[in-house]
Amino acid sequence: MLAAYLRERSTEFLRALRAHRESGGGAPEESAEAVRALRRSARRISGTLHTFRPLLDTEWAEGLRPELAWLSGTLAHEHAHASRLERLLLALHRLSGAVPVPAAAGVGAREEGARGNGARGNGADAPAGPDRTNLTVGAAKAGALLDRRLTLARTRAHSTALEALGSGRFHAVADRIALLAGEVPLSPAAAGADLRLPAAAAEERLTDAVAALPLLTAGHPYNAAALVHGLAPDTSPQPQDAPWHQVRLLLRLHRYAREVLTGAPAETRLEAADQALTRHRDAAEAAAAAAEAARTPRIAPATAYALGVLHADQRHEVEAARFAFHHLWHRLPR
Amino acid sequence: MLAAYLRERSTEFLRALRAHRESGGGAPEESAEAVRALRRSARRISGTLHTFRPLLDTEWAEGLRPELAWLSGTLAHEHAHASRLERLLLALHRLSGAVPVPAAAGVGAREEGARGNGARGNGADAPAGPDRTNLTVGAAKAGALLDRRLTLARTRAHSTALEALGSGRFHAVADRIALLAGEVPLSPAAAGADLRLPAAAAEERLTDAVAALPLLTAGHPYNAAALVHGLAPDTSPQPQDAPWHQVRLLLRLHRYAREVLTGAPAETRLEAADQALTRHRDAAEAAAAAAEAARTPRIAPATAYALGVLHADQRHEVEAARFAFHHLWHRLPR
Repeated sequence: MLAAYLRERSTEFLRALRAHRESGGGAPEESAEAVRALRRSARRISGTLHTFRPLLDTEWAEGLRPELAWLSGTLAHEHAHASRLERLLLALHRLSGAVPVPAAAGVGAREEGARGNGARGNGADAPAGPDRTNLTVGAAKAGALLDRRLTLARTRAHSTALEALGSGRFHAVADRIALLAGEVPLSPAAAGADLRLPAAAAEERLTDAVAALPLLTAGHPYNAAALVHGLAPDTSPQPQDAPWHQVRLLLRLHRYAREVLTGAPAETRLEAADQALTRHRDAAEAAAAAAEAARTPRIAPATAYALGVLHADQRHEVEAARFAFHHLWHRLPR
Repeated sequence: MLAAYLRERSTEFLRALRAHRESGGGAPEESAEAVRALRRSARRISGTLHTFRPLLDTEWAEGLRPELAWLSGTLAHEHAHASRLERLLLALHRLSGAVPVPAAAGVGAREEGARGNGARGNGADAPAGPDRTNLTVGAAKAGALLDRRLTLARTRAHSTALEALGSGRFHAVADRIALLAGEVPLSPAAAGADLRLPAAAAEERLTDAVAALPLLTAGHPYNAAALVHGLAPDTSPQPQDAPWHQVRLLLRLHRYAREVLTGAPAETRLEAADQALTRHRDAAEAAAAAAEAARTPRIAPATAYALGVLHADQRHEVEAARFAFHHLWHRLPR
């Protein structure tokens, strides 16, 4: 099962690589889809090498994993910057009362709430006063600043990814994955080994990490924990987020191990929990991006104000995502 | 019962007035307590005149109510500015990770959350970097700006209240309330009238107003409805808040009517619901004060950023208060 799983991922990887080469850069959507598929396979191969490492040739597995991590990381940045910008601009519009929030952005209630408010008095319908221009300018300038910063970062990430895909280092990784499609280098211990043991160990690491999360707090709505450092001096990632990011990684390892065992995608609940933690990470990174942008020298106070509101809004998204994860994990109705 | 209730409130009013005169201005705490008691009695007399107006001498009641409204309003401002400042400074400290949140400020979970975070990495313990001063300065400057603005407003309100208490207009109101301690001017319809009918009508007005609230949205945690105009151009009170403020007033009328009927303070649940709506109003006004302060000309971007975070934080308090009211109203566990 283990060898078959790795072979399938390897085939997927090679198919995505071919699709990427055929798209040539002339079809951005196809190219982005191919990159996504490359990352998807690379993540699964890497996770499987990690969870089932006693059953695999040690030297081979330990040589390949850092290369896969480098590849996934390099390929992820472009998409991350693009979706961060989209998330922040969407939030800026929502906070200006300008557009209804699309249902995909949050819980069902959010859409309803946005509509309810629109009916009661929408910013776009408010009479134009002397202040109107002022703050609309603040939100617009904040949007333009974020657009400049994140588009620049995205362009750089795009170049870096293209360079990586043309590099000798990448070709070496691709060659090793191609070999995998033929034969998986198993260890002597693999013969007759019970795959369920390493999979159970992965699940246990996840369960332990979840047990260490402040889930009691997260389950109380409006606990105000996520914004507790909203004005703290450090823009580096907030220490309180790290255990949640760690659980996200362990949850993925558990999901992939389940895929190896069952030969099918993991249950919906695990996928939903993964999505909640991805939302947690995306909102945390978006909040940090807003805080960083606010340190741009010589910005207008109205711009800084809008970025402050935006930062706090995204930190509340962080809190909302923790609440959602708490409910999914304990199988509670929402 | 109606006459007895009004006589008791009148006696309370006169006692508070005497206490205020005796405090003389030399004892700020006793003076503030006396003003609070004056407002408390005036609110109840005014509410009772409104709810039971068919049973009272029309001309007398309709002449007294606007005077009581003027008095309550004038006396309320000083306390409102003081507590708004306290709320905002407390929030600024909480957002800087500087102090644990006192339990009184929110649900129990909030305290726990704040403590949990403190253990994981508190802003005060973070290594001092080049950015540290910057944002600490932002929060400090925002605090100083709010302190200046709200202390000025408070001082003005204090003078206005003192002037009002020395005015002929106030003495006329006090005289009319003093008369009430002797004889309550009832209408001919009062003899044998059923007090439960006007009280039921007051309750019905409350129930209707609650039914018109967007309680379904409010009951979904993290619905993001309260901040939907966080960057809207208008700093005037948000239209979405008005129905909640209205329910707060109707809830008080209902509470006072219950007091008239039962001769005892209203049930705990009504009081808790009143507190949730008061928190809603206080947070909404604090959010508006932060937004207004951000329009001060020539403030530093770091100050404006801190005020933006603060505004969003208080709008989430608004949302949290609505959630709390929803649960209290539907008698749900929290």
